[in-house]
Amino acid sequence: MSQKPLRRLALVGGTHGNELTGIQIVRDFMQSQELDGSYNFKVDLLLANQDAIAACRRYIHKDLNRCFETELLSAATPANPEIARAQEINQILGPKGSQDACDLILDIHNSTANMGLSLIISQLDDPLIQCICSHLSQCEPRVKIYYQPEADRSSNPYLPSVAKRDLCIEVGPQAHGTLRPELYLSTKALVLEVLEIVDAWNEGRGPEVKPFKYYRHLDNVDFPRSSTGEIHGVIHPDLEFRDYAPMEPGDPMFLGFDGVIQVWNGDKPVWPVFINEAAYYEKRLAFSLTQEEYFKP
Amino acid sequence: MSQKPLRRLALVGGTHGNELTGIQIVRDFMQSQELDGSYNFKVDLLLANQDAIAACRRYIHKDLNRCFETELLSAATPANPEIARAQEINQILGPKGSQDACDLILDIHNSTANMGLSLIISQLDDPLIQCICSHLSQCEPRVKIYYQPEADRSSNPYLPSVAKRDLCIEVGPQAHGTLRPELYLSTKALVLEVLEIVDAWNEGRGPEVKPFKYYRHLDNVDFPRSSTGEIHGVIHPDLEFRDYAPMEPGDPMFLGFDGVIQVWNGDKPVWPVFINEAAYYEKRLAFSLTQEEYFKP
Repeated sequence: MSQKPLRRLALVGGTHGNELTGIQIVRDFMQSQELDGSYNFKVDLLLANQDAIAACRRYIHKDLNRCFETELLSAATPANPEIARAQEINQILGPKGSQDACDLILDIHNSTANMGLSLIISQLDDPLIQCICSHLSQCEPRVKIYYQPEADRSSNPYLPSVAKRDLCIEVGPQAHGTLRPELYLSTKALVLEVLEIVDAWNEGRGPEVKPFKYYRHLDNVDFPRSSTGEIHGVIHPDLEFRDYAPMEPGDPMFLGFDGVIQVWNGDKPVWPVFINEAAYYEKRLAFSLTQEEYFKP
Repeated sequence: MSQKPLRRLALVGGTHGNELTGIQIVRDFMQSQELDGSYNFKVDLLLANQDAIAACRRYIHKDLNRCFETELLSAATPANPEIARAQEINQILGPKGSQDACDLILDIHNSTANMGLSLIISQLDDPLIQCICSHLSQCEPRVKIYYQPEADRSSNPYLPSVAKRDLCIEVGPQAHGTLRPELYLSTKALVLEVLEIVDAWNEGRGPEVKPFKYYRHLDNVDFPRSSTGEIHGVIHPDLEFRDYAPMEPGDPMFLGFDGVIQVWNGDKPVWPVFINEAAYYEKRLAFSLTQEEYFKP
């Protein structure tokens, strides 16, 4: 990965139209223009799915944040308006995989899960990403590093994969369609902190990379299902809101609507995240499993 | 109000299709049939807006819980499927205002606001409603009584107004489209408790009505707006989640996106409820104001 200075960043909100934190922060910066000329790089501001924002829904036809595989970006006839918008964004902030692409995209999301101020990364080997993760997780206990290694960039479906480097800020718990005041304020502060780090890093005075903890993605877990495929249980009360806490073998995961408890049957602890995220019910995902690891520079 | 025994109750979920607590509880009872023959009255189970439930949205064309004014119920040509469904429900559980109507409808709702286990009532003068409110608010500190006096029954737009008596159970905080385990379990217990009270009351052995606190609806408060009508601020961090707590004159209500704080300018305390309810953003309602009062039998 290049260590050249970053010249162009994009701050994106509204990839999902009902996740209001990023939408409001991008609008604030559009209105105040306070980022213009403040850094040694250019900041593009983008509201990604404007139709979904207007409707206050996650998406209209297809989840925009699953439209950025290279194959979809190069489709001659986009199958729906979200794929068309993905192609448009790829022109503005990419093209994906090219030297002209943005150096970094920060994409701000919300979750109904207790994700705190998660940084979701795909490039643990990048020195700038290491610097951001190391510094922010030291400064703020709610910052957690969730590492989702990508098989290859071209099949990565997420919006920020258009850029050379990607960073997704996942903020919760917040009900979709609402703006929680404290999370709005602390996310805005976090974004400004990232911009400061990049500015310093560009001049060779970025914060020292110290060891930090991160959570490596392992697997996704669906809700219990009836024989006809309907959800047949709820997150167990002992697991609810315990994102990033260890789940030991034998710990309860689900409470069936028939009262039957389903426990974690693995042979070692795992660290669940995205527990009870509203948008993932339709994706057959009750939570994801991660394992705690340490990055040592 | 009649003191005759109740012969027919209805338990309703899914009046809003993304409020999962009531939907699941009604489905549980449909499947287990455990309510059949358990009481000295009949219990009808109803999932109200089935299209919205299938789509996991509050409503499709129009909020079903604003379709029960007598005028809409008697419209020769319903303007949309929700009004058609309201007319259907009026045939099943009503007709509204008639002697054939259900004796009581319990309608279970969720809120993203910190409503606890609220009982929203319109008939403080009814002895059975008094009995339920008195008993449940003694047993469970999260039970709050929110009194919304109605001008007249025929213009009441809410589903349970189809019955002779109405009780809305408003449970939160829960993100729409999710099922929080503890709230699901405690709401189910609360519903069973109401059925037990009615059963006892029918036999003249209902719990004694003791004094209880309730919150009388006063007014609705919109978010701050820009000159072009857009929301221009967030609930103040000090107010978030403080439903049913007193807001004193001078206490902060909103934090503008420009940093300006807006305070409560009244001359006496009020008790806000429905603070930051997702579905009320489109209804121009940031929270409602109530005043604390005491019922003395």
